[in-house]
Amino acid sequence: MNKPASVNVPQLERILLGRWAEERVHSRKLAARDEMGPGNHLAMADHRQRVREQMAALVSDGMVTAAFPEKFGGKGRHGANVAAFEELIAADPSLQVKAGVQWGLFGSAILHLGNEDQHEAWLGSAIDLQVPGCFAMTETGHGSDVASVATTAEYLPDSDEFEINTPYRSAWKEYIGNAAEDGRAAVVFAQLITRGVRHGVHAFYVPIRDADGEFVSGVGGQDDGLKGGLGGVDNGRLHFTGVRVPRTNLLDRYGRVDAGGEYSSPIASPGRRFFTMLGTLVQGRVSLDGASIVAAKMGLAIAVRYADERRQFAGADPVEEKVLLDYQRHGRRLLPRLAVTYAAGFAHADLLDRFDDVFSGAHATDEDRQDLETLAAAYKPLSTWHAIDTLQEAREACGGAGYMAENRLVDLRADLDVYVTFEGDNTVLLQLVAKRLLADYSKEFKDVDLGGVARYMASQVVDRGVNRSGLRQLAQELADSGSRRRSAGQLREADTQRELLTARVETMVAELAGKLREVRRAAASEAERILGDNQDMLIEAARAHGELLRWEAFTNALDGIEDDGTRTVLTWLRDLYGLSLVEKHLSWYLMNGRLSMQRARTVGSYINRLVARLRPHAVDLVDAFGYGDELLRAPIASGAEAERQDESREYERRRRAAADAPVDEKVLRARAKRKAR
Amino acid sequence: MNKPASVNVPQLERILLGRWAEERVHSRKLAARDEMGPGNHLAMADHRQRVREQMAALVSDGMVTAAFPEKFGGKGRHGANVAAFEELIAADPSLQVKAGVQWGLFGSAILHLGNEDQHEAWLGSAIDLQVPGCFAMTETGHGSDVASVATTAEYLPDSDEFEINTPYRSAWKEYIGNAAEDGRAAVVFAQLITRGVRHGVHAFYVPIRDADGEFVSGVGGQDDGLKGGLGGVDNGRLHFTGVRVPRTNLLDRYGRVDAGGEYSSPIASPGRRFFTMLGTLVQGRVSLDGASIVAAKMGLAIAVRYADERRQFAGADPVEEKVLLDYQRHGRRLLPRLAVTYAAGFAHADLLDRFDDVFSGAHATDEDRQDLETLAAAYKPLSTWHAIDTLQEAREACGGAGYMAENRLVDLRADLDVYVTFEGDNTVLLQLVAKRLLADYSKEFKDVDLGGVARYMASQVVDRGVNRSGLRQLAQELADSGSRRRSAGQLREADTQRELLTARVETMVAELAGKLREVRRAAASEAERILGDNQDMLIEAARAHGELLRWEAFTNALDGIEDDGTRTVLTWLRDLYGLSLVEKHLSWYLMNGRLSMQRARTVGSYINRLVARLRPHAVDLVDAFGYGDELLRAPIASGAEAERQDESREYERRRRAAADAPVDEKVLRARAKRKAR
Repeated sequence: MNKPASVNVPQLERILLGRWAEERVHSRKLAARDEMGPGNHLAMADHRQRVREQMAALVSDGMVTAAFPEKFGGKGRHGANVAAFEELIAADPSLQVKAGVQWGLFGSAILHLGNEDQHEAWLGSAIDLQVPGCFAMTETGHGSDVASVATTAEYLPDSDEFEINTPYRSAWKEYIGNAAEDGRAAVVFAQLITRGVRHGVHAFYVPIRDADGEFVSGVGGQDDGLKGGLGGVDNGRLHFTGVRVPRTNLLDRYGRVDAGGEYSSPIASPGRRFFTMLGTLVQGRVSLDGASIVAAKMGLAIAVRYADERRQFAGADPVEEKVLLDYQRHGRRLLPRLAVTYAAGFAHADLLDRFDDVFSGAHATDEDRQDLETLAAAYKPLSTWHAIDTLQEAREACGGAGYMAENRLVDLRADLDVYVTFEGDNTVLLQLVAKRLLADYSKEFKDVDLGGVARYMASQVVDRGVNRSGLRQLAQELADSGSRRRSAGQLREADTQRELLTARVETMVAELAGKLREVRRAAASEAERILGDNQDMLIEAARAHGELLRWEAFTNALDGIEDDGTRTVLTWLRDLYGLSLVEKHLSWYLMNGRLSMQRARTVGSYINRLVARLRPHAVDLVDAFGYGDELLRAPIASGAEAERQDESREYERRRRAAADAPVDEKVLRARAKRKAR
Repeated sequence: MNKPASVNVPQLERILLGRWAEERVHSRKLAARDEMGPGNHLAMADHRQRVREQMAALVSDGMVTAAFPEKFGGKGRHGANVAAFEELIAADPSLQVKAGVQWGLFGSAILHLGNEDQHEAWLGSAIDLQVPGCFAMTETGHGSDVASVATTAEYLPDSDEFEINTPYRSAWKEYIGNAAEDGRAAVVFAQLITRGVRHGVHAFYVPIRDADGEFVSGVGGQDDGLKGGLGGVDNGRLHFTGVRVPRTNLLDRYGRVDAGGEYSSPIASPGRRFFTMLGTLVQGRVSLDGASIVAAKMGLAIAVRYADERRQFAGADPVEEKVLLDYQRHGRRLLPRLAVTYAAGFAHADLLDRFDDVFSGAHATDEDRQDLETLAAAYKPLSTWHAIDTLQEAREACGGAGYMAENRLVDLRADLDVYVTFEGDNTVLLQLVAKRLLADYSKEFKDVDLGGVARYMASQVVDRGVNRSGLRQLAQELADSGSRRRSAGQLREADTQRELLTARVETMVAELAGKLREVRRAAASEAERILGDNQDMLIEAARAHGELLRWEAFTNALDGIEDDGTRTVLTWLRDLYGLSLVEKHLSWYLMNGRLSMQRARTVGSYINRLVARLRPHAVDLVDAFGYGDELLRAPIASGAEAERQDESREYERRRRAAADAPVDEKVLRARAKRKAR
């Protein structure tokens, strides 16, 4: 017989800490220090100053060198480095972002796009914060479309220099971390022009402020001022007017210019060159995926602990009110999000493995890189949206207490908000993923003529039970009829869930491929129309792909859980994740004949049963995240509510027992009524 | 022939201003003054001070008296008053809330719960702000469950006084506006005890601070400090220890105590008494419904104007990039929310009419009051959730610019966030609505035995085409097959939409009634289980009811539009609203045999067509809201983006024409390729 369902919290916590447990624990210990806590309550200038001091503490700690080469005190440990940085969310998201700008973007750009001499020249001072740096890519007029930035860097052979220019207002660099106050240098992305040819976007190391913190000649800027959150990061704008830098300030790994102005690149295709260059910066998206999951975990830990104590409205018990988490709706609000968070966490562990493989060189083929980039582009949107959705639901689930800044949820949400549109807007990223899915699909069928694709789709339709006439569905309905229990049982099976989730991705991609077949041969305006008409479905297909991969990651992780009781609970949680996805897309499953009406009607009630079954384990499941009071820093999650209730319960008990206790008018009326009969 | 679709903006603006256009316009003019603008950028203390000064400006303006009796300078104009106050969102939501506390809650409680002497004593100083007041209802331990507040007010016949006491920490009054700093008096809700009997919650006028702003003896409190928003409102906590007030400080419209301690009330039932008392405070929920819609309108105006100018990524045009709003997904993100906002606005106009009818006494039967309360309880959750959802989508749709505080969206969202949990938590309110729906349902069938109800449900199932065996659905499928166009046409028809939306409410209520039949006869714990197992569906039924009523309000409003072109556009918008609801609940319609698979598959594409059709009118539709630059106060919505583009377009044009214009490497490569052939 199986061990009864129960979570072995320490064991599960170790599993969730994953491969770089030591680094995560170290980072959390750092984050738990008083001076490392969030500064959202401070005025902007004070918050910025606090984060500056926290940045210095990270340097003293030494953790910032992990990903850099040995000669800079580092260990080239890329996965470990990102794991540690993600946990800084528990300190202050402003710190996580400012650290990301300095070491993840500015430092990484020098590392990955620069040559050895450039490392020698600039990496040390980037690592030890002697030179706070900017990553000047985005422009006012161009965000996610980086290829179109308008800043120019023209080579002047006479002086062997590049001249950086901002041609107009919309080409100002915008939302740049460190630009408003701290940045001394910037990696500036600009259109490289030499000998009258524009070679596309390249990165240049450009000093922007002198030792006194004044802009150097030709550089100007503005403070972005207050934002929706991240008050500790000094975002700002930068512009350049005839700013000269030596030719050797071009970070030249993927494109160089010789003294005579001759351009050369190891990658012939300008398009592929551009994407390769950007690909080295995938770390940002990987770490946002992880950081968002940390934020969601914290939000859930706060809301679940509170919901497990907080009472409101009387239930059957005449004396004791009912605990929030015992309400069906409350469970429905929090537990499916807990399931998503677990799935996202396991998927992120895989992503981090791949990231480490690629950047350590262990598995670093072009295909490995592309897979990593696609995976990061699929997960980052899902996780960042999930974080703000979860933090919002957590805040609402805590009522007015959730709105108090002291309980952390509103500030975490405000800080995380921008994660959905920076480092690649989520909507844009999902379209990249969809394009990759379509490319893979067409590769698979490249030897098949169009008639063949149509035939394949038709056969797939039969194989998979998609049948638009509804006849096949009717058969399933007849088979299902009157056996709701059995169909619920089937939905619980991993194979059924996998089949449903996989079918959705495959069918959508095949359908899109069919619709987009015409694009290649169509005139530009017609191609645009066809693509445009299917944009929504493209995005949904990419999302479905990410959801499936997360489900697979969760399912794989179940094998690694030794404790039977824990595995049982986590299997329910995986089922809840899988079935919540099926419920979310239920109309698709119905319209495509993948689920009968009969079976579809069991999904909701089965989810309700899973929620009820998981409810007793909810606190264990958030405890296993490992964020204690010292990191949550939220009074409502600290047991204060239970203490208050103990006090009131004791008072009311004594009051009831007292001789002069007032009696309720309602009770008197009921007594009178009984007497009258 | 019909006039081509086009919006007559001034005419539509007048329609949207509605019955109290003059008051709305007046309030907007006030809100547009520099000193009345939002203070979210200020430190908390400064923001509070700014709102204090704005409050004084409202007094000087005289608008605050509108709803009060003539002898206090008022006109008893309830609807006009709420209409004007809603528009204060455009000034600063902190001002709207602080004004709501002072005049809508504190002043209204005195007006509606007090007698003439009490009006004479306290109303004047509440209206002219001589006495800033608190509405001390919520306690730390009890939010939406007001009946359970634990503060006591015991009558002491010897001194002819009430003694107010806070028995324990969880009975502190919490989140109370004006409590932290400004409040001089409070309407305190407490359990009235006299002669050893507890008569339930009543309201007492209690001075809390002296002329120097110090707490009077026995009163204590705390500042809530920073919140997720509404920084200009000084929320705080209050507690009372042996605080004595004269017997005549009981606001005694619904319950009085004579000098001997004898309690009497015009309403015998303690339950009905309590709900009647709370019912007088429905104004809060009515005004939150309206205020939320104002916020949604502002968010959409900002995002739509920006999306109509902002360009990103090249489309078919090789020179000019594509405008955001021309992307299908972008339209899908903004236009359905625009449709909801229109529907919510028309529904709110109805609600405000009813509110005025009840409070002016024109239609003020018990049933009128109950209808008003149910309607407010249905709309307030929908509108407040819609506002924060819309503001969030608007912020994301504006990318990084949306995250800049200067563009207003993040602060509006942060301020509106708490609207979903205060003045009745949304989830709790929807359950009240569902209970009313069930009560109406059972009233309709009160003479029918249970078997009869079951038979009715069965016959309704046949009448309405609900048929769980799927056979009826199959017939519809056969009829539909191959005629997607026709079925889309049918979905466009108002009758079809009404039937679909109505059927969902009716079926859910009937289904719930069936499931809850057992509750009355079940033991308490069993009844709790049954209710608990259906909580989610209860809430969904209430939401569906609110959605249907909004659809009806939108449809009725179409009749009032004289301009043909405008009516055509608004009819599309109404269709978009109706079909978006059908799409949202598509799985329900499929599972319940209300839509065939075939027809369901047309919903999404028909919505896409509506979005494309409405796109050219989007700016007109937000312009008709009437919030110009002076009220939006968002640089990105002011045309700055188009100006920047004009500048860059002109620059690039000149550059291309210049002799030394750099040529793109891609172009050179393409040329070389052609040559090689």
